Amino acid sequence: MLRLSQLFVRTLRDDPADAEVPSHKLLVRAGYIRRAAPGGYTWLPLGLKVFRRVETVVREEMDAIGAQEVHFPALLPRDVYEATNRWTEYGDNLFRLKDRRGADYLLGPTHEEMFTLLVKDLYSSYKDLPLSLYQIQTKYRDEARPRAGLLRGREFSMKDSYSFDIDEQGLQHSYDAHRGAYQRIFDRLRLPYVIVKAMSGAMGGSMSEEFLSPLDVGEDTFVRCTACDYAANTEAVTTGRIDTGSTEASVASDVHTPDCGTIDAVINYLNEQAPRYDRPWTAADTLKNVVIMLKQPDGSREPLVIGVPGNREVDMKRVEAHVGPAEVEPFTDTDFESYPMLKRGYIGPQILGKESASGITYLLDPRISIGTAWATGANKVDTHVINLVHGRDFTADGTIEAAEVLDGDPCPMCGAALQIARGIEIGHVFQLGRKYADKLGLSVLDQNGKQVVVTMGSYGIGVSRAVASIAEAFHDELGLRWPREVAPADVHVVIAGKGDDSTSDFAEALSQQLESSGLEVIIDDRVGVSPGVKFKDAELLGMPTIVIVGRGLAQGTIEVRDRLAGTKVDVAKDDAATHVLALARSTP
Amino acid sequence: MLRLSQLFVRTLRDDPADAEVPSHKLLVRAGYIRRAAPGGYTWLPLGLKVFRRVETVVREEMDAIGAQEVHFPALLPRDVYEATNRWTEYGDNLFRLKDRRGADYLLGPTHEEMFTLLVKDLYSSYKDLPLSLYQIQTKYRDEARPRAGLLRGREFSMKDSYSFDIDEQGLQHSYDAHRGAYQRIFDRLRLPYVIVKAMSGAMGGSMSEEFLSPLDVGEDTFVRCTACDYAANTEAVTTGRIDTGSTEASVASDVHTPDCGTIDAVINYLNEQAPRYDRPWTAADTLKNVVIMLKQPDGSREPLVIGVPGNREVDMKRVEAHVGPAEVEPFTDTDFESYPMLKRGYIGPQILGKESASGITYLLDPRISIGTAWATGANKVDTHVINLVHGRDFTADGTIEAAEVLDGDPCPMCGAALQIARGIEIGHVFQLGRKYADKLGLSVLDQNGKQVVVTMGSYGIGVSRAVASIAEAFHDELGLRWPREVAPADVHVVIAGKGDDSTSDFAEALSQQLESSGLEVIIDDRVGVSPGVKFKDAELLGMPTIVIVGRGLAQGTIEVRDRLAGTKVDVAKDDAATHVLALARSTP
Repeated sequence: MLRLSQLFVRTLRDDPADAEVPSHKLLVRAGYIRRAAPGGYTWLPLGLKVFRRVETVVREEMDAIGAQEVHFPALLPRDVYEATNRWTEYGDNLFRLKDRRGADYLLGPTHEEMFTLLVKDLYSSYKDLPLSLYQIQTKYRDEARPRAGLLRGREFSMKDSYSFDIDEQGLQHSYDAHRGAYQRIFDRLRLPYVIVKAMSGAMGGSMSEEFLSPLDVGEDTFVRCTACDYAANTEAVTTGRIDTGSTEASVASDVHTPDCGTIDAVINYLNEQAPRYDRPWTAADTLKNVVIMLKQPDGSREPLVIGVPGNREVDMKRVEAHVGPAEVEPFTDTDFESYPMLKRGYIGPQILGKESASGITYLLDPRISIGTAWATGANKVDTHVINLVHGRDFTADGTIEAAEVLDGDPCPMCGAALQIARGIEIGHVFQLGRKYADKLGLSVLDQNGKQVVVTMGSYGIGVSRAVASIAEAFHDELGLRWPREVAPADVHVVIAGKGDDSTSDFAEALSQQLESSGLEVIIDDRVGVSPGVKFKDAELLGMPTIVIVGRGLAQGTIEVRDRLAGTKVDVAKDDAATHVLALARSTP
Repeated sequence: MLRLSQLFVRTLRDDPADAEVPSHKLLVRAGYIRRAAPGGYTWLPLGLKVFRRVETVVREEMDAIGAQEVHFPALLPRDVYEATNRWTEYGDNLFRLKDRRGADYLLGPTHEEMFTLLVKDLYSSYKDLPLSLYQIQTKYRDEARPRAGLLRGREFSMKDSYSFDIDEQGLQHSYDAHRGAYQRIFDRLRLPYVIVKAMSGAMGGSMSEEFLSPLDVGEDTFVRCTACDYAANTEAVTTGRIDTGSTEASVASDVHTPDCGTIDAVINYLNEQAPRYDRPWTAADTLKNVVIMLKQPDGSREPLVIGVPGNREVDMKRVEAHVGPAEVEPFTDTDFESYPMLKRGYIGPQILGKESASGITYLLDPRISIGTAWATGANKVDTHVINLVHGRDFTADGTIEAAEVLDGDPCPMCGAALQIARGIEIGHVFQLGRKYADKLGLSVLDQNGKQVVVTMGSYGIGVSRAVASIAEAFHDELGLRWPREVAPADVHVVIAGKGDDSTSDFAEALSQQLESSGLEVIIDDRVGVSPGVKFKDAELLGMPTIVIVGRGLAQGTIEVRDRLAGTKVDVAKDDAATHVLALARSTP
């Protein structure tokens, strides 16, 4: 039994100054966590209980699919990550350090290399496979902007697992097993989720899906089709059906466009001075060329121009998903000075491309398909060009899915309208393939005695992030509300009598009875704390069931509240234990 | 049930090249751990099970004394450790790093500061105390010589707890509670231990005891009295009864001692050329002055001369325990050149001491008491001096307990003979006092509304080290032998039939039955592995009970081995489950 008179917890009236999202505010205010460092949090006793329960759910479901638990160090030598080039590719996100002898180490952000080498170390035959290993371990990433409490920290707990198979069919089987386990985990945690197609990011590999919990505080944006079951992270959305429209156009011609600093101004000007024969010009007829700077992990920088229809912005998160491990930086005034061919506001494709005069890489949105005609910059100040046809008047180095995705865009599978929403990434399943096994030499003998490179999957769940996500999904304006599976206790018993012994005696006896029936109880036995403060704390702390032993006891009743349902009911004191037990066993 | 056909484990025939101690060799050979980095080990599935069981014992006993579990980050900002000067004092043992903004961080070696600040953050009144908090967490220390596998790593798991009390009486109570919990923990782990007085080391504070497991591979040396209950780490031993002997002496006089490079040579020479009137000179009559260099955490170096009777060496571990956080370095040839007054082999106290000509600090063993007369160096080549009396002819800056402790030395409590032994430090309990609370401003209001600085205790158990210590204490030449409380499984069932189904069927059924009775079973169901290899593996892996289902089954018997007792018995197959269950429930 947890006694609030002794429990190491203090509730706070005010939100912490640095907190922006509800889970961060409430977990700190309710005394579950406490900031210890930028992006680093201390688990206080109640928080640690929730954390352990989430961990247990994850562990049980991983064990159930036959994955075996191991545990690696977090402090790892450089050479292992050199072999895969991730020492460099991870860039600023990696915590690097030297030991007393000057040898290079890192704090593990993920453990692909270590798992690959461990299996290489112990296994050598197809008979040893399939194999799935996992760990629940502290990870480190030097986030540029640690934020939102546990949602994006620099030190956090993650369950990462890796599957090892001899062939694609085996990998698919391991992948499906993990995917199923993740569904069961999030179901048990009662975390709502959408499984979306994902980019592979810096990890390499092929098939990849994310489990996103659809919550507005999430950093991920995803789309769902209103008609079919397509869902994807916006980073991974592919452009749907493209109306190629009119592919014939007159010869390209320059138009003098003075004082046209915006696309709207250009459109208005063209509609006045160079009207189309068929319909007015719109922003969708213009080709906007956005120049950015790519910073490679080795520190080198090179420009990239991305062409998109003028009615869409370039989505930098989508760009980063495609250009990683390079990072995207703004193209500065100084950069423009270094590339005088690029006339700001008048950049056109005629001078772009690796083979062009500028030598600058040029990538196009898929909507700028071959044969389409565009109004765009003429690479001269105050000048645009119209009827510039892709394939006739200019070429590019390839396409890139970088234009912003808009609500209502056509689904790439069925053409129906896509809906956009935000979510928290709570899980990731990923067919790594042979990238790591190849680089680190993990192969086994197959049935014919031939060496075969092993194919791998990688699967992650942020355990500390899951705690925060549950808090996000279930809180209300009064405080936290924990699903029973992860709550620090089942029942919060409040002694709300006015100094008389009878309420205290009854509450203590009831709590004992509930504990001996297998429930876990927090009892608010604090002396000198008003019932009002105790009620507020009970709601803030968020146990699924709140029992109030107070004034009603004289009339033979206690009050039982269901924190999730928001209901309350008076129960005869003799039925109290039975009622609470039934409630605890029937509601999740 | 754990199936060896699927379990991620490989036993090795050969000891790992870098392993020196049995626990390291056997834990690697049996597939419990695997080296991942210098001083960093990966827990494989079987090892992780043992680790978790040890962790559970520790957690249960900590909870039982009302300590509350929290969990801090390992990556901590510099400023907290600056406040106590430990950022510097920790010297090379601290892993330091910078984040992407250049801010300084460390990997926590212990968490005194963080706990102190956390309590300061939440608590403010004497009513909140006493309080004990603990965590089981990964710690980092940049050991100069990581060695012995889990016994001295650079990344390891430790349970550290801290008590907070208003006064000395409270601290003593918290200390005793932890001491009792530690006794129960090590009793449950079946780890033999001796509780010895300890030095406080770099932590500051007063009363301090270590739990040492008396094992020859240990790095600690301790003494036990053969008559009373005195026991102490040799670092903390105080010199017992001192025979001051003859305190009268003639005037000091130089003796020309050519070619006397050793104390023995000096003694022989003196006995020939300057014989005593009462008895021959012995090494115990000479005062040996040993010069060392102290390196402070800030990098500065200063010499220290320690005077001990010539029949004892200076014990550098004892010196370090007293001079910490400074480190002891040898006094090099170059150093001698910088201090030409110090004539190697002829250093005498006449020129030593802070107030002396040299200004070099001079500390004496307590046996060099005031009034005693000595033969020692005369600070001239080939010259010694005799009848040099402490207090009359020379002084020192103080005493230091730095002479080696010898088997048979008198007990400081009762004078009986001390016995020397080696041990592994498995636990440490420590009255920190107000050092950290003072420096970090942790005070609470007492009954009279006055601010009182809190007094603290700190208590540590190395969880990963405990695993290795148990392996050290219980292994034999065949392999590991786990006490039941920490064994990965209770029973190891070996299918030792020759390809016939009956042994396999019986073993599977028996294993099921044992599991459903609450035992944990490892079954060696590997196909194509000979019974001999399976027996060897069973002994190496070290479950407390080994069941062999083999040739005997045709005659209606199986064999049951008790791995710890080393006994084996044939049991009728129908009694097998009953027998094994009874064994499991009766033997620890």
